[in-house]
Amino acid sequence: MATLEDIAKTLGVSKSTVSKALNGAWDVSDAMRRAVVETAVELGYSRLRRGEEAPRLAVFITNMDYASPEDFGYDILVGFRKLAEPAGYQISVIPLDYKLEESIPYDQYMLQGNYQGGLFLGLCLEDPWLRDFETCRTPTVLYDNRISGNPRVTYVGADNAEGMYLAARYLKSLGHRKIGYLSSALGAYVYQQRQQAFFQAMQKNGLPCDQGQARDSYFFSVCLEEHLPALLGQGCTAILCSHDTLAISVLDHCRKQGIRVPEDVSILGFDDLPRCQGTQPPLTTVRQDRTELGKSAYCALSSQMGGVSLSTFLLHTELVVRDSCGAPPRGKI
Amino acid sequence: MATLEDIAKTLGVSKSTVSKALNGAWDVSDAMRRAVVETAVELGYSRLRRGEEAPRLAVFITNMDYASPEDFGYDILVGFRKLAEPAGYQISVIPLDYKLEESIPYDQYMLQGNYQGGLFLGLCLEDPWLRDFETCRTPTVLYDNRISGNPRVTYVGADNAEGMYLAARYLKSLGHRKIGYLSSALGAYVYQQRQQAFFQAMQKNGLPCDQGQARDSYFFSVCLEEHLPALLGQGCTAILCSHDTLAISVLDHCRKQGIRVPEDVSILGFDDLPRCQGTQPPLTTVRQDRTELGKSAYCALSSQMGGVSLSTFLLHTELVVRDSCGAPPRGKI
Repeated sequence: MATLEDIAKTLGVSKSTVSKALNGAWDVSDAMRRAVVETAVELGYSRLRRGEEAPRLAVFITNMDYASPEDFGYDILVGFRKLAEPAGYQISVIPLDYKLEESIPYDQYMLQGNYQGGLFLGLCLEDPWLRDFETCRTPTVLYDNRISGNPRVTYVGADNAEGMYLAARYLKSLGHRKIGYLSSALGAYVYQQRQQAFFQAMQKNGLPCDQGQARDSYFFSVCLEEHLPALLGQGCTAILCSHDTLAISVLDHCRKQGIRVPEDVSILGFDDLPRCQGTQPPLTTVRQDRTELGKSAYCALSSQMGGVSLSTFLLHTELVVRDSCGAPPRGKI
Repeated sequence: MATLEDIAKTLGVSKSTVSKALNGAWDVSDAMRRAVVETAVELGYSRLRRGEEAPRLAVFITNMDYASPEDFGYDILVGFRKLAEPAGYQISVIPLDYKLEESIPYDQYMLQGNYQGGLFLGLCLEDPWLRDFETCRTPTVLYDNRISGNPRVTYVGADNAEGMYLAARYLKSLGHRKIGYLSSALGAYVYQQRQQAFFQAMQKNGLPCDQGQARDSYFFSVCLEEHLPALLGQGCTAILCSHDTLAISVLDHCRKQGIRVPEDVSILGFDDLPRCQGTQPPLTTVRQDRTELGKSAYCALSSQMGGVSLSTFLLHTELVVRDSCGAPPRGKI
């Protein structure tokens, strides 16, 4: 573990300059502050002093309303806190946007904030820090994102391949043969993974499938107004959706269009958000246990901080059968 | 938790018959014993009584010499014991073969042996119990084997995709373009995975690759005498091997044939067995931390027994650079 002296020696400045720079004193120039922080990061310096203050972890959240129990991020954060806080950590929740990520390298941000580790929820493939994760030194856990080759980064998530397999197997058991897949845009790792898992699941279940059976768009309106009719027009009797929010929109859209669910078409989601129980009809979906995911994220981070280098940590999924799937309409199979 | 009474009631026999059947008394018929054990398994009965005896875990090993520190299984077992024994478990190491697996269903074996959980090392895709794992109720961890859809089974291993990526990236950095892949037969999940990972790694590194660049056989002799010359004949300047034992045989074979490593061809292994340090030349390979894998296996099993349903638990890999790889021979790139 590097000390203040090490940093001072490397830069050829006094220890007090280093200390002031790390503490953001006004009489240290921005250039010096940057040089000190960069050197500190390079040398692996950590500001934590045992007993001085509670160690800190940062949870970064993009595009999620973690304050609403209805939202996906809420239970993950609850699960994370359930283990992290009794272990003595202080948790900061930090909304993440490109502006922050572009303003400072990740390791520097973490060192300046005195964070021992970070958890990320909702990253996209374009997030600027995603490149930093390839070489970062801060113990880091990414929910639903995978970085190869950096022992300091762990991927935590649900087993998407299993979830899609369970969904396709269930639809097959109801008599469906031609199943369509509707997805958000593939700009997030999780949606790329789930689409790939859909094709594997169809193959594993011996169901016919071509590329045209999977359609995606960033815009729900395109999914509903273009892709859904196209899939139904191809003869799909069931639609598997990349996530519940999209599946719930499909249910609403069908109701407005007079398409009966599940009589005319079966709809299946992924995630099991709380509001799936109250949709019309209640949504059949693949469950990821979000509280357990949050706990797993803490366990993975804690292992990293203890020097055990986890790459991937996936939880089992579960099919939750409600009322949005049934047998395919007669004459359609 | 079911009791002796529950089993007796379900079968319509006395509690003492059930007790005798479970304890293997001579005056209970084989048919009755089987009925009792099957019912006990179905009802989720466990024979463990708190304080009566140490809880037991079984480690099943196929084709591995776990008593030799040179062997792959040894360190895994050591890692597993390091966590399991201080936690109060008694560990039985059980050599696994088809005869045992065919003689009794897995859950019944575990109940009769009074094992709370099982770890499997070295399973093949043809192992009869592999089907049992799809529905078993005993908490189970498979090293390098994956079962979809059973919350009681966890897959633990190294991140093969990452390892192959690191290997291909390194060979590319040395100047290699055409890399061959030599593998044991694809009758084990791990070899299927690594071969797939090889193709992905080549693609991710922007290296040309066709199906003919990957060759496999159950017999080392076929790998050495047919596949190796074929790959070299195609112009491969580096050979990536599915595992160290094969890579070490390739090194030996090259020496006998007067093929210089790494001057004429670079050889890269996977696993980092202890003897890689002493080969001629010392073998560059992808490291899986076997002690850490053993510890991970215990953590995963312990999570299962505590009701947390892990699907996949992968450790980071690491490239260990020794002397068996170099620049490709001139005029060959």
